[in-house]
Amino acid sequence: MNIQNPERPEPAPVVAIVGATGAVGIELIRCLEARDFPISELRLLASARSAGRRLPFKGREVIVQELTELSFDGVDYAFFSAGASISLKFAPFAVAEGAQVIDNSSAFRMDEDVPLVVPEANAETLADAPIVANPNCIAAILTCALAPLHQRWSITRLSMSTYQAASGGGAEMMEELREGTRAHLANEDFEPQILPHPYAFNVFSHNSDLDPDTGHNGEELKVIAETRRILGQPKLPISVTCIRVPILRAHGIALNIRFEDHVCQDRIRDALSDAPGVRLVDDRALNHFPMPSDASGQEDILVGRIRNDLGDPSGRTTSLFIVGDQLLKGAALNAVQIAETLYERVAVK
Amino acid sequence: MNIQNPERPEPAPVVAIVGATGAVGIELIRCLEARDFPISELRLLASARSAGRRLPFKGREVIVQELTELSFDGVDYAFFSAGASISLKFAPFAVAEGAQVIDNSSAFRMDEDVPLVVPEANAETLADAPIVANPNCIAAILTCALAPLHQRWSITRLSMSTYQAASGGGAEMMEELREGTRAHLANEDFEPQILPHPYAFNVFSHNSDLDPDTGHNGEELKVIAETRRILGQPKLPISVTCIRVPILRAHGIALNIRFEDHVCQDRIRDALSDAPGVRLVDDRALNHFPMPSDASGQEDILVGRIRNDLGDPSGRTTSLFIVGDQLLKGAALNAVQIAETLYERVAVK
Repeated sequence: MNIQNPERPEPAPVVAIVGATGAVGIELIRCLEARDFPISELRLLASARSAGRRLPFKGREVIVQELTELSFDGVDYAFFSAGASISLKFAPFAVAEGAQVIDNSSAFRMDEDVPLVVPEANAETLADAPIVANPNCIAAILTCALAPLHQRWSITRLSMSTYQAASGGGAEMMEELREGTRAHLANEDFEPQILPHPYAFNVFSHNSDLDPDTGHNGEELKVIAETRRILGQPKLPISVTCIRVPILRAHGIALNIRFEDHVCQDRIRDALSDAPGVRLVDDRALNHFPMPSDASGQEDILVGRIRNDLGDPSGRTTSLFIVGDQLLKGAALNAVQIAETLYERVAVK
Repeated sequence: MNIQNPERPEPAPVVAIVGATGAVGIELIRCLEARDFPISELRLLASARSAGRRLPFKGREVIVQELTELSFDGVDYAFFSAGASISLKFAPFAVAEGAQVIDNSSAFRMDEDVPLVVPEANAETLADAPIVANPNCIAAILTCALAPLHQRWSITRLSMSTYQAASGGGAEMMEELREGTRAHLANEDFEPQILPHPYAFNVFSHNSDLDPDTGHNGEELKVIAETRRILGQPKLPISVTCIRVPILRAHGIALNIRFEDHVCQDRIRDALSDAPGVRLVDDRALNHFPMPSDASGQEDILVGRIRNDLGDPSGRTTSLFIVGDQLLKGAALNAVQIAETLYERVAVK
């Protein structure tokens, strides 16, 4: 989206990024530049350890400052991407200064006063709230594809397994995957520092804590709760298994969708080919379907393997495979899209 | 299993392996040695290109011979693992010589006169047939875990996504994964030779051909047909998405099982902890579940993440994650177990 308000009288917004040196922070800077979000000042904030680093933005270098309670003076939009505890501690200071907070952590996602937004799915829930929550990466990628289907045919059940990349664990986990793989190929010992398991040529159940009663991990519970909230279906039955695979920055989702009634696979394909933020990659003759190697660095999520599910004799279930860049639609891009939507509304007022 | 028939009068069997130099062939030789299958002569057969290679067996070296129509003279057990076309062409010559054929290809799996056997699941179907079929790797690993559950509680639906290793495509695909990954880490160009897609740090829909009407690939259709046959449920609804992930030799399966009635997760866990060929890896406190890094080189399949599925409000669905060595339970080990079962029956007669 290009925001063009040449007549707009007030100066362009001041934008802050908390966690600017992290994997998502870097992508936030790139997205703001690539999408030409209007900015009069970009304030990059991080821990004392990262203060003083210089990061490129629009041909200049911006010096990273240490995050403090006084960092938000004059800020219009503050992106938070430094974990839930930092958001809980510092977002109130940004709000007190009148900033609009867009929070990429899980801190406020289930707060009823905080909209949880994927613009393609539920932009209408973006109220005048001081904080807007950016969803979990799987929930964002998933609902971007599901919303146009749910609006047409009403989804009654979801069942999915994920193929999640290292970037969900930040730049350190991506580096651990690279270094562990290099060591594995060289037959060298490698002691993982970030993960409890070896990552090279391995897959494992998502590394979030497990609920001892239900046996579901934190990632799965987030996906269920946030997907229900974004789709506005608080009791939608959702089955999900979250698995980490050795890829760098794009998440895959193998998905079964049950609709209220039978929907033919061709109508699903047509609906998705028109959907914003979605690119159809569904070539049966060439065996070409969504892959992380095609999705990485792309704003659109890729959807394919669309077929009526042989496992549901009622004919109401469709299978899909979705891949989206975890750092873009799963994090930074969605956050910038939220800011764009908010900015446009101010412009319209 | 150790076969101990010290009183057995006749000489030990003559065993042939067709495709001895392939990834599965090498594991067949290792399994026969590790499990001490009684052998008076091991005849290793392969294409002319591989003839003359020497492979180790029980401290000796066995010279690989070229496969011809005359290769089966005196053979008691002939393992075939060189693809369906070789099995279709040469298995009849082995049968004509009185050999018992155990075929690892897809050539005879849906032939009603040919038993399709996973000993833990349906050893009772091993009739006096000249050819026995060894199932598709996913079907073998899956039914080994499912049989003890189906026998107790009757399965009415299966839904799964796979995490399949390179070894399913043979030694060449494993090498392509290693070499492609090495090149990726070194920022070098790499042109895949075996696969249509880059494999390093990538996942993709299984590389078997797609049925243009249903949109299912050959691997998925095999898993559905063979699982139904092994479980003796010709119409069992099965939903499956087969995905290749960048791991070397163990397949993962994220699985939902729907039973006729509600079954509590603790009873499932108890049933699997007693099941032959299955090892429970299900530690919620340590976040330790089945992984390829633990399953590779292991005879047992690993089962964990056992939990009642939040996506089925009826409470009849359980989720699991299974990992098994593709070259062992998914191929060579299961074939040797079939031979052991057949040999024991002869011994009992």
